[in-house]
Amino acid sequence: MSFKLNEAVEILERTPAMLSSLLAGLSDGWLQANEGEETWNAVEVLLHLIEADRTNWLPRLEVILQDGEAGAFPPFDRFAHLNGRKGETSELGGLPAEFAELRHRCLERLRQLIASEELLERTGTHPAFGPVKARELIATWTVHDLTHAAQIARVLAKRYHTDVGPWKAYLSILK
Amino acid sequence: MSFKLNEAVEILERTPAMLSSLLAGLSDGWLQANEGEETWNAVEVLLHLIEADRTNWLPRLEVILQDGEAGAFPPFDRFAHLNGRKGETSELGGLPAEFAELRHRCLERLRQLIASEELLERTGTHPAFGPVKARELIATWTVHDLTHAAQIARVLAKRYHTDVGPWKAYLSILK
Repeated sequence: MSFKLNEAVEILERTPAMLSSLLAGLSDGWLQANEGEETWNAVEVLLHLIEADRTNWLPRLEVILQDGEAGAFPPFDRFAHLNGRKGETSELGGLPAEFAELRHRCLERLRQLIASEELLERTGTHPAFGPVKARELIATWTVHDLTHAAQIARVLAKRYHTDVGPWKAYLSILK
Repeated sequence: MSFKLNEAVEILERTPAMLSSLLAGLSDGWLQANEGEETWNAVEVLLHLIEADRTNWLPRLEVILQDGEAGAFPPFDRFAHLNGRKGETSELGGLPAEFAELRHRCLERLRQLIASEELLERTGTHPAFGPVKARELIATWTVHDLTHAAQIARVLAKRYHTDVGPWKAYLSILK
C-alpha cells in the first residue's frame, strides 16, 4: 500500500493542466479521432472526466462519510456526457478551463471533507463490490485520471497506425 | 493515411509541456515508481525521450535526405540513457526544461530539413525493415511520444494497484 492523501492530490491537481497542455489548440483531426465505432475521442474523454468530478467521486465520498455502509451511492452513468452535451463532443472549446476550475473546487472540498487521516478508513457500500473505504475511492479517482490520460494518448497515437509504415511492429500502443 | 507535417508537429511541440505539467513537483514516491525489475520509472522514460531526440530521429532523417537508401542509420541504443546518466535516473531536476529546449531546437531543424512536401516521400534504409519514408519516420516520432506519455500514466497508476481495493476490477490499466 502506498496511498497518502497529499500524494493522491498531487496527481489529481495536475491532470487538468496536463490534458490542457496536450489538447488545447490541437487541430480537429486529432480532437475528433477515435478508435472506431462506440469509442471516445479526446473531447469525449475529457467530458467524461468532468462528468465524473461532478456526479461521482465527491458525492460518493460524502455518502461514505455521512451514512457509512448504510448509505447508497448516487448512480454514475459513464455515458451521461455523451447524451447530455452532444453538441460539445467534437469541440474542445472551454472544456479544459471548465475541468481545471471544477477540479480545483473538488480538491478544496476534498480537503474540507477529509479533516483528519482517520476519515480515510471510513467505509461505504459499493453496489457491486460491497464495503469500500474512503481512501480506496480517492485512490481510484487518481488512477481513473491516469487511465483516461493514457487513453487519450492511445487514441491520438492510433490515428497514425498506418502512417508509421513498418515501424508499427515496434509500437505496441497501435495494436 | 492521415499524416500531415504540421499536425505531427502539433503533437511533437506539446509533449514537453504535457509531461512537465504532470511530473514537475511530483514527490519522489511517484517519480521513482516503476513496474518492477528492468522497467522504467517516469524519470527514465523522460531521459529516453531526450536521448531519442538527441541521437535518433533527426540524425536518421538527415541520412534519409542526404544519402537516401544507400545511407546507414546511426545506431540508436534504447537503453543509453540508463548507462550514460545513471545518477539522474531518480531525480527529475531540470529534465523537463532540458527536454523542452531540445525539442524546440529539433522542431526548428525539422522545418529547415523539410523545406518542401515532396521531401516527405524520400526513402532511406532501416536496418530491420528495409525502405522507409521520411514521413513514416516523423509519424513514428509522434507516436513514440504518445506511447511514452501513456507509459508514464500507466507506471504512475500501477503504484496504486492495491490501494484502489476492489475497484481494481474496473481499472484495466492496472492489469
